[in-house]
Amino acid sequence: MRPSGRHPNQMRPVVIETGVSHHAEGSALIRIGGTEVLCTASVDNRVPPFLRGKGSGWVTAEYGMLPRATHNRGTREASTGKQSGRTQEIQRLIGRSLRAVTDLNALGEISITLDCDVLNADGGTRCASVTGAWVALRLALGRLVANRVLSQVPLHGQVAAVSCGLTETGAVLDLDYAEDSAAAADTNFVLTADNRIVEIQGTAEHAPFTQEQFEALFSLARIGVSDLFAAQNAAITAAESH
Amino acid sequence: MRPSGRHPNQMRPVVIETGVSHHAEGSALIRIGGTEVLCTASVDNRVPPFLRGKGSGWVTAEYGMLPRATHNRGTREASTGKQSGRTQEIQRLIGRSLRAVTDLNALGEISITLDCDVLNADGGTRCASVTGAWVALRLALGRLVANRVLSQVPLHGQVAAVSCGLTETGAVLDLDYAEDSAAAADTNFVLTADNRIVEIQGTAEHAPFTQEQFEALFSLARIGVSDLFAAQNAAITAAESH
Amino acid sequence: MRPSGRHPNQMRPVVIETGVSHHAEGSALIRIGGTEVLCTASVDNRVPPFLRGKGSGWVTAEYGMLPRATHNRGTREASTGKQSGRTQEIQRLIGRSLRAVTDLNALGEISITLDCDVLNADGGTRCASVTGAWVALRLALGRLVANRVLSQVPLHGQVAAVSCGLTETGAVLDLDYAEDSAAAADTNFVLTADNRIVEIQGTAEHAPFTQEQFEALFSLARIGVSDLFAAQNAAITAAESH
Amino acid sequence: MRPSGRHPNQMRPVVIETGVSHHAEGSALIRIGGTEVLCTASVDNRVPPFLRGKGSGWVTAEYGMLPRATHNRGTREASTGKQSGRTQEIQRLIGRSLRAVTDLNALGEISITLDCDVLNADGGTRCASVTGAWVALRLALGRLVANRVLSQVPLHGQVAAVSCGLTETGAVLDLDYAEDSAAAADTNFVLTADNRIVEIQGTAEHAPFTQEQFEALFSLARIGVSDLFAAQNAAITAAESH
Amino acid sequence: MRPSGRHPNQMRPVVIETGVSHHAEGSALIRIGGTEVLCTASVDNRVPPFLRGKGSGWVTAEYGMLPRATHNRGTREASTGKQSGRTQEIQRLIGRSLRAVTDLNALGEISITLDCDVLNADGGTRCASVTGAWVALRLALGRLVANRVLSQVPLHGQVAAVSCGLTETGAVLDLDYAEDSAAAADTNFVLTADNRIVEIQGTAEHAPFTQEQFEALFSLARIGVSDLFAAQNAAITAAESH
Amino acid sequence: MRPSGRHPNQMRPVVIETGVSHHAEGSALIRIGGTEVLCTASVDNRVPPFLRGKGSGWVTAEYGMLPRATHNRGTREASTGKQSGRTQEIQRLIGRSLRAVTDLNALGEISITLDCDVLNADGGTRCASVTGAWVALRLALGRLVANRVLSQVPLHGQVAAVSCGLTETGAVLDLDYAEDSAAAADTNFVLTADNRIVEIQGTAEHAPFTQEQFEALFSLARIGVSDLFAAQNAAITAAESH
Repeated sequence: MRPSGRHPNQMRPVVIETGVSHHAEGSALIRIGGTEVLCTASVDNRVPPFLRGKGSGWVTAEYGMLPRATHNRGTREASTGKQSGRTQEIQRLIGRSLRAVTDLNALGEISITLDCDVLNADGGTRCASVTGAWVALRLALGRLVANRVLSQVPLHGQVAAVSCGLTETGAVLDLDYAEDSAAAADTNFVLTADNRIVEIQGTAEHAPFTQEQFEALFSLARIGVSDLFAAQNAAITAAESH
Repeated sequence: MRPSGRHPNQMRPVVIETGVSHHAEGSALIRIGGTEVLCTASVDNRVPPFLRGKGSGWVTAEYGMLPRATHNRGTREASTGKQSGRTQEIQRLIGRSLRAVTDLNALGEISITLDCDVLNADGGTRCASVTGAWVALRLALGRLVANRVLSQVPLHGQVAAVSCGLTETGAVLDLDYAEDSAAAADTNFVLTADNRIVEIQGTAEHAPFTQEQFEALFSLARIGVSDLFAAQNAAITAAESH
Repeated sequence: MRPSGRHPNQMRPVVIETGVSHHAEGSALIRIGGTEVLCTASVDNRVPPFLRGKGSGWVTAEYGMLPRATHNRGTREASTGKQSGRTQEIQRLIGRSLRAVTDLNALGEISITLDCDVLNADGGTRCASVTGAWVALRLALGRLVANRVLSQVPLHGQVAAVSCGLTETGAVLDLDYAEDSAAAADTNFVLTADNRIVEIQGTAEHAPFTQEQFEALFSLARIGVSDLFAAQNAAITAAESH
Repeated sequence: MRPSGRHPNQMRPVVIETGVSHHAEGSALIRIGGTEVLCTASVDNRVPPFLRGKGSGWVTAEYGMLPRATHNRGTREASTGKQSGRTQEIQRLIGRSLRAVTDLNALGEISITLDCDVLNADGGTRCASVTGAWVALRLALGRLVANRVLSQVPLHGQVAAVSCGLTETGAVLDLDYAEDSAAAADTNFVLTADNRIVEIQGTAEHAPFTQEQFEALFSLARIGVSDLFAAQNAAITAAESH
Repeated sequence: MRPSGRHPNQMRPVVIETGVSHHAEGSALIRIGGTEVLCTASVDNRVPPFLRGKGSGWVTAEYGMLPRATHNRGTREASTGKQSGRTQEIQRLIGRSLRAVTDLNALGEISITLDCDVLNADGGTRCASVTGAWVALRLALGRLVANRVLSQVPLHGQVAAVSCGLTETGAVLDLDYAEDSAAAADTNFVLTADNRIVEIQGTAEHAPFTQEQFEALFSLARIGVSDLFAAQNAAITAAESH
Repeated sequence: MRPSGRHPNQMRPVVIETGVSHHAEGSALIRIGGTEVLCTASVDNRVPPFLRGKGSGWVTAEYGMLPRATHNRGTREASTGKQSGRTQEIQRLIGRSLRAVTDLNALGEISITLDCDVLNADGGTRCASVTGAWVALRLALGRLVANRVLSQVPLHGQVAAVSCGLTETGAVLDLDYAEDSAAAADTNFVLTADNRIVEIQGTAEHAPFTQEQFEALFSLARIGVSDLFAAQNAAITAAESH
């Protein structure tokens, strides 16, 4: 039995609210159970130096956690003066995941920065960030189309992410904090709505695992992302019908 | 006429929501017009080295702004590796303001950190932070009393803050961003419910101002904080009646 | 009785010496009792990026304390690799105070940096810095006029600063270190010779204070700055009569 | 045809030399084609604070690249003052991979730091680091057994890593730099000699890929690591037969 | 002819004033021509961790330059967040030079920090710092004897430093800034009053030089330090006769 | 008797291998006894800002030590976020030494960076770095001539460096770690093949020393560098005869 009483293949409730950020060109507040991440997309008419004059756009991400998003207060990274290795690893993952479904040439010399800030953490913050950031990005691109900066939304895929893990219960979908901290293995899958792989990260926390176990986790992930794609689509529809 | 159509002595709507942070011992999400700050109070059973073994507690604050809380995206301080002078000045102000109404000896060897993170900025974020942080602190102290760690709430005052400024319209209460960026003078008043002064900061942005002008601003501040004390009291009552 | 035997409304002796820095365009070594600050004004023909091409000048300040300016040796900020929040707060105050009386448009695209370095500290170093920096700035601007870079000194005010506080003796003028470290409230007033306010900072160190107390402190400040304006004028006259 | 003329399932030549570091308790200089990494294992009789008094040991890793290990000189991270996100991500991977096969309780309160410094880079430096670090770790543990600090080598697995990718040629094993920089997908597999998974990292560089493609890459990886396990075993045997 | 009109073997005027720092246990303001350095000695009853419990004392130094000590304003190291290589090289030299004449065992578990801050720079600041720091150290040690912390001054030598260089005029003593910036070679000699060598640093700025030239510079240095020893002795006598 | 059994005027074996770095324009792996330093020369077609448009080239150096180059593992400077004073002092020395024999005007607007990374340390790493860096520089310049970027090698001297010290045995040549850590005085001589001085650094570690002792050390250094010049020449000949 899982600590939350969920079935092994059951996601926590997913809610995505848009427009929470007053100034961002696109924003999504994603809640997956007790995890809550505010994702904003900021459009800038300049690209980083390595891309200038090449006609290509850029998508990047930054990730942060409010000090008291967690059970015990963590140090504020702005105060210690550096981002942890974990933070950097996560923000690189988010950026790669979104670039993999964006047509950077069609975007043109525009940068979009996705900021994912965790307000409350209960496991799965990197996956929630990817999933919410896709909505914020999609809305910001939609606005560029509405403003006739772009002729169509330069996305060739819809992306969402979920974690699965090996716990005492066996393979389970969408780890919460209690499960995550005790899991023997932890995997994150970033997948597209047309059934392709953007990123896979699998880590044996305590002991190596088998290929069969890995495949079981992968199957759960495919179940989980279908909930996430539906929640993304509902949020976009609601936002754009205003 | 003010940009927002408000009267010179009119505050923006004030709403304080509690319990938004799932883990913090006390929390308040304060909204003053378009400004929105999440304030959390975190209790720690250790005090900083300079206080160890002295029987006294400590209250301190940290302040941050999400990169896209503002019209244009600002840099993330965790990423640049240092807090700006403005950030440090504000978090020192919040800490001093709350220590001034806390009985640190009655608190005993406990530290409370107030984190004030701006989700949306439209002027007055430091004042909203002080006002919201007092609620978060009050709730965290109330929980220590409920848990019998303390016998009574070690506060000898209720504190709130508001900005006033000299604009083209004359002296006005509770500057929003449009007013703040054009004001000839900007003043912040941190006041107590029993009519005393915790902190006054008055700055001539463009030209020095007169003592009469300063007194007009001070009078407006007294009007403004009465709204804030009422909102604080309502939030505490609602939170503690659950 | 004050620790120094002074009357409540009595400043410490004030001496301002000029020309102590061999290379600076303007300099003032200000001594107020045991507090001693070397202020230099450095002229640069470039302005910061945000002002380029706008025809406006800039005035800014940096503040530092020699490690053994104090009773106990403090750490060297260059060695620890960051300026404290206190240092940044003070240098921002000095910069704002001098910009408030400078006609930046008349200055043209020139930057002036005021460096205020405390050689000996006995309370009131931020106020001494503002007061000395004004002399250094005035001398540097006078030299620009003498060199026909400017047609007249682009200042529309004379500025000085003094601290007042609530001590066991009551409200007193010009706190020394012994008084400052025990004061219930500490206020800094940056005022102009024509009786206007540039900056007010009032802080309850231990307990909130009343409006009447604040007004008593303000009255003392007006007495104190008249001594400072006289010392500034004497220093300028002496420097320019060479 | 691959740029190097290799078959899709062909590793580059692998050579592991031991004893190159004069002082380290274990060391391995691993060469995989033109990639060359010096791996050292340093034994320390203290564990990090979070483990003190718990009876458990620790294994961690640091990674670096000499500035001119690459085609164009990179900046020295010691000089810029921070490790890149890429560096941190790699050293975290190395540390996790080795901890996954170490019996930390059997190690006792001892820390082992693996330093992996790239002398020459031609793709696959993170995988070479994991593979070489396991040899350095194994030798350092062997020495602790020889010195009777431990009764047996506290490893429950042998670990090696290899990258595979999707290139114009299709799925290929052991990417060199020319292939890596043009690959559509890049995957790293950290596997054990008994056929289990320690870590999988798969990334779509340009376009998402299918599950079938992923499985093809996984199959190649299984071929590649068998070469690496053989080279590791040869190096250990040679080193311990002296 | 030298720019200053001095003879090749002529020092600039040397003046050492004591007691300029109000709080330091020993202090010396040394002026050598237009170079002016404030040296303070601060006594601390703790030694660095690597010396604790060993019965030995420690002497160390820190060096800084006020931003406008130079012809053009330099950046403030506290503001840029790091000390330059030059600063670190100089403060290491000062520390080594004074440790070489101090009996650290006789000092006991006491640390003395010499702060050398350049108020005005006209060449030779590192040599002036060593020379002035010896006076500050000597006075601080004398005070420890006067306070009966030590039974006698734990110095086994008197140390002073001077620069010599190869200029268009040939070998000259005590380079000022104009000479220093054009010299073909620059040497610094730290010597003792009993004719021994503490430190020699000789650098070919533009072209290597001969052993004969080096010996000529060394002979000039011996002349120069005799002036410095006399100025040190006069300052100590004056300070201790109060 | 020296710990290594060497005669006082005997160098350790010197071997210089070239081409060890695959990508650098010039490289030398220098081994002097147990000290081993990898020196690479990297050519860049840009000069630092202060030289742009002046027609002059630049030569600079960076120095590092692998964490386990030493008996006990040292911290990684990239990880602590700053280079030690010692590191900066050494890399400044290497840069100055090579600039002193380079005709920067003949080089033209090209920068060459010498990276000296210590793989194994047994004393004398800074001297080995200078000696090896000269070979790397010479090879990189030779390649620029071969590629017709330059018409001839813009070097007007050959430079090598050796340390000598005062030990219990008396004055000895080429200190190894055991001698270095116990020496009463430590001197480094950077000399040219035509018998001139580029840099002299002499330091009394424990007690000041006499001019006679200094001259004895200098004589030993002249013996030592002749071995080094021969090894440099052999390495260049071998490299260029391929």
